[in-house]
Amino acid sequence: MTELRREPVTRMWVVVTTDHPRGPADYLPFKPPYQPQKAVGPCPFCPGNEGMTPEETLSVPGEGGKWSVRVIPNKFPFFHIEGEFDRRPEGMYDLMEAIGAHEIVVEAPEHEQNFAVMEHRQIERVLLAYRERLIDLEKDRRFQQFLILKNYPGVFLRHPHSHLMAMPVIPKRIDEEIWGTLDYYERKERCIFCDIIKEEMGEKRRVIMETVHFLVFSPFASRYPFEAWIIPKSHSPDFHRIREEEMEDLSIALQSLSSRFYKLLSDPPYSYAFHTSPIQSRFHRAEYHWHIEARLRIGLREGFEWGTGFFVNPTPPERAAAYLREVG
Amino acid sequence: MTELRREPVTRMWVVVTTDHPRGPADYLPFKPPYQPQKAVGPCPFCPGNEGMTPEETLSVPGEGGKWSVRVIPNKFPFFHIEGEFDRRPEGMYDLMEAIGAHEIVVEAPEHEQNFAVMEHRQIERVLLAYRERLIDLEKDRRFQQFLILKNYPGVFLRHPHSHLMAMPVIPKRIDEEIWGTLDYYERKERCIFCDIIKEEMGEKRRVIMETVHFLVFSPFASRYPFEAWIIPKSHSPDFHRIREEEMEDLSIALQSLSSRFYKLLSDPPYSYAFHTSPIQSRFHRAEYHWHIEARLRIGLREGFEWGTGFFVNPTPPERAAAYLREVG
Repeated sequence: MTELRREPVTRMWVVVTTDHPRGPADYLPFKPPYQPQKAVGPCPFCPGNEGMTPEETLSVPGEGGKWSVRVIPNKFPFFHIEGEFDRRPEGMYDLMEAIGAHEIVVEAPEHEQNFAVMEHRQIERVLLAYRERLIDLEKDRRFQQFLILKNYPGVFLRHPHSHLMAMPVIPKRIDEEIWGTLDYYERKERCIFCDIIKEEMGEKRRVIMETVHFLVFSPFASRYPFEAWIIPKSHSPDFHRIREEEMEDLSIALQSLSSRFYKLLSDPPYSYAFHTSPIQSRFHRAEYHWHIEARLRIGLREGFEWGTGFFVNPTPPERAAAYLREVG
Repeated sequence: MTELRREPVTRMWVVVTTDHPRGPADYLPFKPPYQPQKAVGPCPFCPGNEGMTPEETLSVPGEGGKWSVRVIPNKFPFFHIEGEFDRRPEGMYDLMEAIGAHEIVVEAPEHEQNFAVMEHRQIERVLLAYRERLIDLEKDRRFQQFLILKNYPGVFLRHPHSHLMAMPVIPKRIDEEIWGTLDYYERKERCIFCDIIKEEMGEKRRVIMETVHFLVFSPFASRYPFEAWIIPKSHSPDFHRIREEEMEDLSIALQSLSSRFYKLLSDPPYSYAFHTSPIQSRFHRAEYHWHIEARLRIGLREGFEWGTGFFVNPTPPERAAAYLREVG
């Protein structure tokens, strides 16, 4: 049979196939959804080519006085830092300029790199760069939401990098999570994510790994095969308020999960999205619990998800977690 | 600059790139997201192989006493027709059996076919089959929502077919549309989709084509490049209540839009999703307005959409509509 499982935060129903479940071999050899375009000329993210990019907003020093992580404004941003919102109607519709910040975090000097094989110390430097940029961008009162997104491999450039955005609106999925979090809090006076952590640590079947400060698990109503969440065990709404002692721990969790994906599915494409509370006192929600959602971009069911928001997952999370636990 | 446009029904903000807009050439040659698996043995949907499939639920006669459209239960259904819901908790979560109907509509006897080159009379027979099956399935009081989905090419089998489902829950996107429709109705005592039709027919820039009964247009806050909606000009919540005189008209609209996609982007993969009101008196919404949403599966931005529900569209709908108008 197939099951309908309800995602507890947003209350979305997901179909999970339990009678013909798919394991890793069913996805291999996967067809990459796209190939990074062949680079024309030198890589703008490689050391020595710094002049090809806009001036950096942050540089994390590495060995020998060289940079180890570099943050630059995106040359082709979705959000522009300068200008006015100019909120206006267009006929019956609503429109405004896309004001915001859109920066690129170059994650290492090396052109060929990957969280799966990277030293966790280097991932920690990337996390430090994220945090420092967010603390700076938080001062700009025009922004409501941070979004950090890492695609491996990158869509246009292979050199490992992530996107860091400060947006003037709250994206749909975050908005739904906030709504679900507040609704749960009103009924229970508890954080729903804290309850999920207790549930998963007790139940164990969906746990992939643990560190002192973080839990890595396959969510009960996983929308995607091998979906995984990394979540801090102690309640905190904001990624950029992460404490020093959690930082190394998170880099170890990210390194380990990436390495498990790599081994289990022969270097698959994946994405990490950081979900964190909206910012500014008007939008901030202390009840929210920040976390990272990870997805392998290997599914075939795309046609069933777009347009209806209805997900079908042929790999039950209990199996996904077992595979990811054992490969580690 | 880039613009933030608000989707009027669900109120989601979408980034639309207007300064470096992409035309069809920027998507070519596109990489198909997947290749239908190589068929092992004969095609179960071809005439002569009817014994390979479950017994049909409907057969539309064609010339010479042969079938022209055939509807069969899916051998690997997401929803099972028999059994009990068995709604139950699992720890803190909610779970039930995925009870429902999941049928396959074989759209033509020919193995190599495509709405883009099909006779519109044949598409009309497919629509008749959809309607007849939905009228039958509506009698089953366990179901809340119909979903018709056509992927071209199919994910596993190339022979042209679509999926027809009766679900025991309302999918997220439909639920959001219902919510937006009711909220608008409360404020204005008008259907939001009827207002959109008036707006688009007056504005004209986003209109792709018109028939007597249908409008085909690129929505203002298109989430995907070349997104298109086909919508009946007169208010109706339910696709399966479509009138005789609208039927041929809709087949012409579907044929023409598919053919425009085909010519503009060299036979790209596409999907059609039918959005129609929930069924049964408890869930049915007279304020809703059924329509078809069409998407080309050619984008590169996937990483930005999953997990946050935040869409970036590099092809403004005014341009998309102009391309699709002119290629016709």
